[in-house]
Amino acid sequence: MSQSNCMVAQSGGPTTAINASLAGVIHGVMNSGKYDTCYGSINGILGILNERYLNLSTAMASPESLKRLCLTPAMYLGSCRYKLPNYRDDDSPYVFIFNQFEKLGIKAFFYIGGNDSMDTVLKLSDYAEKINSDIRIIGIPKTIDNDLCATDHTPGFGSAAKYIASTMLEVAHDTFIYAVKSVTIVEIMGRDAGWLTAASALARNEYNTAPHFIYLPETPFDQEQFLEDIRKKLETLNNVIVAVSEGIRDKEGNYITSSQAMADQFGHQQLSGAGKALEFLVKENIGVKVRSVEINVLQRCAAHLTSATDLKESFTQGQKAVSLAEENVTASMVTLERTSNDPYRVSYSHAPIRGIANEAKLIPREWINEAGNDIKPELEEYLRPLIQGEAAVEFENGIPVYMPVPHLNPQP
Amino acid sequence: MSQSNCMVAQSGGPTTAINASLAGVIHGVMNSGKYDTCYGSINGILGILNERYLNLSTAMASPESLKRLCLTPAMYLGSCRYKLPNYRDDDSPYVFIFNQFEKLGIKAFFYIGGNDSMDTVLKLSDYAEKINSDIRIIGIPKTIDNDLCATDHTPGFGSAAKYIASTMLEVAHDTFIYAVKSVTIVEIMGRDAGWLTAASALARNEYNTAPHFIYLPETPFDQEQFLEDIRKKLETLNNVIVAVSEGIRDKEGNYITSSQAMADQFGHQQLSGAGKALEFLVKENIGVKVRSVEINVLQRCAAHLTSATDLKESFTQGQKAVSLAEENVTASMVTLERTSNDPYRVSYSHAPIRGIANEAKLIPREWINEAGNDIKPELEEYLRPLIQGEAAVEFENGIPVYMPVPHLNPQP
Repeated sequence: MSQSNCMVAQSGGPTTAINASLAGVIHGVMNSGKYDTCYGSINGILGILNERYLNLSTAMASPESLKRLCLTPAMYLGSCRYKLPNYRDDDSPYVFIFNQFEKLGIKAFFYIGGNDSMDTVLKLSDYAEKINSDIRIIGIPKTIDNDLCATDHTPGFGSAAKYIASTMLEVAHDTFIYAVKSVTIVEIMGRDAGWLTAASALARNEYNTAPHFIYLPETPFDQEQFLEDIRKKLETLNNVIVAVSEGIRDKEGNYITSSQAMADQFGHQQLSGAGKALEFLVKENIGVKVRSVEINVLQRCAAHLTSATDLKESFTQGQKAVSLAEENVTASMVTLERTSNDPYRVSYSHAPIRGIANEAKLIPREWINEAGNDIKPELEEYLRPLIQGEAAVEFENGIPVYMPVPHLNPQP
Repeated sequence: MSQSNCMVAQSGGPTTAINASLAGVIHGVMNSGKYDTCYGSINGILGILNERYLNLSTAMASPESLKRLCLTPAMYLGSCRYKLPNYRDDDSPYVFIFNQFEKLGIKAFFYIGGNDSMDTVLKLSDYAEKINSDIRIIGIPKTIDNDLCATDHTPGFGSAAKYIASTMLEVAHDTFIYAVKSVTIVEIMGRDAGWLTAASALARNEYNTAPHFIYLPETPFDQEQFLEDIRKKLETLNNVIVAVSEGIRDKEGNYITSSQAMADQFGHQQLSGAGKALEFLVKENIGVKVRSVEINVLQRCAAHLTSATDLKESFTQGQKAVSLAEENVTASMVTLERTSNDPYRVSYSHAPIRGIANEAKLIPREWINEAGNDIKPELEEYLRPLIQGEAAVEFENGIPVYMPVPHLNPQP
C-alpha cells in the first residue's frame, strides 16, 4: 500500500494557542485510521518551497511532548508572510508544492493561521480543484484579533483576551495608588477589529470600574469628544484609565497616530501609535499626569497566562481538521458554533473557505454603546466564557518550560 | 494601661511584593506582645497629614485576607511622592505627624518603600531624636530597581526579575518565527541601576541564547559600538534580541533617548525612550526589520507571575520590622544577608538608615563583561535564586482575584 501522510504548517502572527491546534492535528493523525506520518513544514508554506520539514509523528510521539507543545507560545513550526501568486499568472510555486506533496505521500494539508493564511488555503484549494488533485486542504483558524468570519470566535483570542483583562486589572491597581489626577492610556492590538480591546472590560469588578472608556476601530474617533470624555470623568475620579485599539480612525478613516496629533501642535511628524497620540492629546489639552502603555507583543505571546477554554478549543479544532479530511472534506476551514452561552457550550463544524478568506468580522455596532466610548453588556456576555480557566504552565529554574525550537533562529 | 499601637504606610513606585511586606507587618503586630492595633496611613506619609487611616487589625483579621493581600499588586494603602522638608527649615509637618502619633497611641511607625521613602524614614528618625520621642521608626525596603544599599537585594525585585526573564523567553519565541533578519529591542525599567535589565539573561536556556546583548546604565553606551554589535551578530543569526535599560547613557552621561538619536537624522525632537532610540538607530543604519517593546508598568504590577521566594522574603521583612521595633531598634531599615548561594539561604537583620537613604547600589563593574554588552556568570548566579518558585494567584471569572482597594480612586 502506498503511503498516506499529511502535512501541517502555521502562518501569520503568533498566538499562545496556535501550537495547541498543531498538537490537535498531530494527535488526530496519531489516532487516525487513514494517515500515517504527520510532517510539519517549517516557516509556513515557505517550508515546502524550501523543502524544510520535521517529522512530527516521531518528534511529538510522547503525550508529554504534545502537552508541552500545547502550552508553548508562538509557532513551533515558524511562520511566514508569503503570499502565493494567482496560479493563472504564475503556477510555478503550485507545481513545486504539489510535486512535494506527491513525493512525500501527502493526502491532506492543514494550514493554521489567520486571514492571510486562509487566502493561501483558498488558493491551494482552487489549484487542487483545477488539477483534479484529491489532496484535502483544510484551514484551521487562529488570530488574537478574532476577526475571522463563519466562526463564533478564533483560537488564540480567548487567551489574549484573558491576558488583556488580567493586565488591565493589574494596571488599575498600579494606577490607583496616587491621590493625584491622572490619565492612563492602554493601547491594545487590533488594526481593524476591536474585539481584543473590548476584552479589557472584563477587568471590571466590584471595586474596579476601569477601563473607564473603550475606543474601538468600529466607531469613528473624535478627538474633541475624547477630550470631553476625559475632562468630565476627571471631575469625579482621580485616576482615569482608557483602553484604546491601535486601529482607531477618525471619521475620514485616517488612523489616529501621534504624527497627526503632534502635527497640529508642533508641525512635525511623530512615529508612534494611537496610545502615544492620545497621551499627547491629554498632555497638551488637559495637562494632568498622563502615561500610555502599549501592551505590544506580550498580549500574543504570554503563554504563562492562557485561557484553558481557548487551549482546549484550539486543540479540538486541530483534531477536527484531521477528521474532516478523513471524511473527504476539502477547501474548508474548521469552525466553531456557540450552542449555548450559559452554560457555555460549543460545537465544531466547517465552512467553505471561499466565503472566509479576505473577509473580516467586526464588532456589531449594536454591541457598542451609542457614544462609541464603551461596550454594551451583550458584548461582555459574549466575551466572558472565552477567558475561563487557567492552563498550568510548568516552571523550571524560575522560568516557564516551553517546547524547544532549535530549528527556528538556528545558532551557527 | 495606655494604648500601644503602631502605624504602617507605603510609598514610592509599585511592586508586586510590597503588599506582602504590609501583610508581614500586620501579621507581626497580631502576634506581638507589645502592640495592639495596626493602623494604615493612606497614601504614604500624606495620609497622616490628611488624617486618612485604615484599621488594618480589623480589616485584615482573617488569614485569608492576609494571604490575598500578599498576592495583590501595587500598594494596598496607596502611595505618595511627598518629600518632607528639612525640619530645621519647617517643622510644621513634623509637629502635626507626631501629634497624630500621640493621639493614636502610635509607638512604632513602619514605612515600606524605596530610596525616597528611606529619606522620609531618616528625616522622621532625626526629628524623633531631636524631640526625644521614643517612637520606633523602621524602614522596610521595596523596589524593583534593587538599588538600595546595605541589603543583599530588595523586596519586589525578584518578582519583577522573574517577570522580565519569563517575558524575554516568550518574546524570543515570538521573534524566532520568521526566517528573515530582524532586531527586537526590549526596554526594561531602571534609571540608574541595571539589575532588572540584567535579569533578562535568566531567559537563556539550552535552545534560547536571547537576549543576545544587554546594555546597562552602569557602562557608557556607544552608538557605533552598538551598531557594530548588531551587524556582527546578524551575520550568523536571523533574529537578534537586545535587552536595554531605560537609563542607558553615553560617555558624557546623556540619556540615550530617541530625541538624540533622531535629532542627528532629521534635526527634530522625539519624545520616546531608549528602546525607541535603538529602534531608530537600527532602522536608519542597518535597515533590517526592527521592533522595540517597552515592558512598561507590567514589570512592576504583573502579580499573576510573582516569585514565591520574593513574596516570602518580603513578608518576613515586614514581620522582622515589628520585632525590631519591639526590641527598641529605631532609625533603621530591615536588611537581608545572603549567607549561602547554593543552597540559597538568607538571614534578616537591620542597618542604620543614615547610610542607606539617598544612596544607590549599582551593579559592580566586574559583574559586567568587558565590552559592556552582556553580564558575567557571577551576576547570573546572584540573580537566579531570587526568581525561584511561583506564588499561586487565585482566579475567578477568568481574571485574578486581588484585595479590593475601594479606598483608593474612590467612585463618586
